[in-house]
Amino acid sequence: MRILIRIAYDGTGYNGFQCQTNGVGVQDVVNDALSDLFSRRMKTMSASRTDAGVHAEGNVCVFDVETKIAPSKIAFALNARLPEDIRIVESKEVPPDFHPRFQSTIKTYEYRILNRAHPDPLSRHTEMHYYYALDEKKMNEAASYLIGEHDFLSFCASGYSSKTTIRTIYDAHVARSGDRIVFSVTGNGFLYNMVRIIAGTLIEIGALRYPPERMKDILMARDRQSAGPTAVAKGLVLMSIRYPDCPNDP
Amino acid sequence: MRILIRIAYDGTGYNGFQCQTNGVGVQDVVNDALSDLFSRRMKTMSASRTDAGVHAEGNVCVFDVETKIAPSKIAFALNARLPEDIRIVESKEVPPDFHPRFQSTIKTYEYRILNRAHPDPLSRHTEMHYYYALDEKKMNEAASYLIGEHDFLSFCASGYSSKTTIRTIYDAHVARSGDRIVFSVTGNGFLYNMVRIIAGTLIEIGALRYPPERMKDILMARDRQSAGPTAVAKGLVLMSIRYPDCPNDP
Repeated sequence: MRILIRIAYDGTGYNGFQCQTNGVGVQDVVNDALSDLFSRRMKTMSASRTDAGVHAEGNVCVFDVETKIAPSKIAFALNARLPEDIRIVESKEVPPDFHPRFQSTIKTYEYRILNRAHPDPLSRHTEMHYYYALDEKKMNEAASYLIGEHDFLSFCASGYSSKTTIRTIYDAHVARSGDRIVFSVTGNGFLYNMVRIIAGTLIEIGALRYPPERMKDILMARDRQSAGPTAVAKGLVLMSIRYPDCPNDP
Repeated sequence: MRILIRIAYDGTGYNGFQCQTNGVGVQDVVNDALSDLFSRRMKTMSASRTDAGVHAEGNVCVFDVETKIAPSKIAFALNARLPEDIRIVESKEVPPDFHPRFQSTIKTYEYRILNRAHPDPLSRHTEMHYYYALDEKKMNEAASYLIGEHDFLSFCASGYSSKTTIRTIYDAHVARSGDRIVFSVTGNGFLYNMVRIIAGTLIEIGALRYPPERMKDILMARDRQSAGPTAVAKGLVLMSIRYPDCPNDP
């Protein structure tokens, strides 16, 4: 049977999610834990290859196995074999033809900013620190222009090979709670570094270097040079991946 | 002049706050950074000696120094000399007779619980994971009985030597946001392990092992054995210490 697992991880200590030839990817460690559990060499197919330093509350992998362990219990058995910076937060059976990357998905990311004079040691690995004042209302207005179907080529790092740079954003907003600003974005897919480039652009807007409407011009430009810098990896968290067409994962 | 510093730290890597003869306390590291900055051996007086594994967003120390550095800039100079798990979040001048422990204080602590099936790697060092269902409304009712002036001997670890075990709690409440439960408590002082023993007791109540009203009986008992277990250190954060009588720290 095919098993879907949702994986949360602190990306700080890993060279990204994907299996690596140099350094260790989160997926290497998950594959090792699966291999240990099922006493044979196991491989997983992943939904998203997050970069080094990027975190997740719910990346998704699938694998095939014949086992007497109930699907929902596989998470517990794997967690007993994983380091504490990686946790399986859900495991369940999906149809045998389910593929985590080749069917329609709804992905949500958060980019987290601490906006005050001094960093916070308690969240130093999971948020970007920004010293100067940021206007979250202007950032939120700018984010609203991203909603809908657009060509996001301006927000795509070079070297990316994708058939199309058109994606649909279902929701994008920025909210402040005290010193903390969170940019949340939900869409049917994201280009390489797209969320981090958008976050870097929103910071330029929050710092009043661009007006919010500039976001529309940047989208139209279809040119990476028109957008802001790529924000640091550690502020990015892949929150969830949902599969609306999967009968077991609405 | 006398300088007050507010210190945030991830307590995971330290043997508590206080200077240690074995292991390293947060205060040792702060004293070393001060000594480096002012080119002489510096010592600090602290407000609160948090235990190993306990965190802070704003513990307080003071020290005396003659310097041309503006008081508010000392935080930046120290942060350049500190590891990233310790950050000075404020520095300012206070009266020469100010002592962080021997004058009236208002302290706020948080105890953080993740209440779901699997732990979260992103906050694994700063919250307790609790698998079974917790009823936060019953926990909040129980917490409300703590408000006011009471003898907290039942919530004091043995071996503590204090003139009195009477303290005043100004606010105590429990709130849930999704899978996360936070117990917040503000008072004029806390006995050794008091917040962790209260948190352990609240968890017993949230798990329906005691009714909420039991909190009143435990207070009356003046007996450590009547309360619940001491909750793990890593869920505890010293949020702030305020000095209502200090003209510069209302």
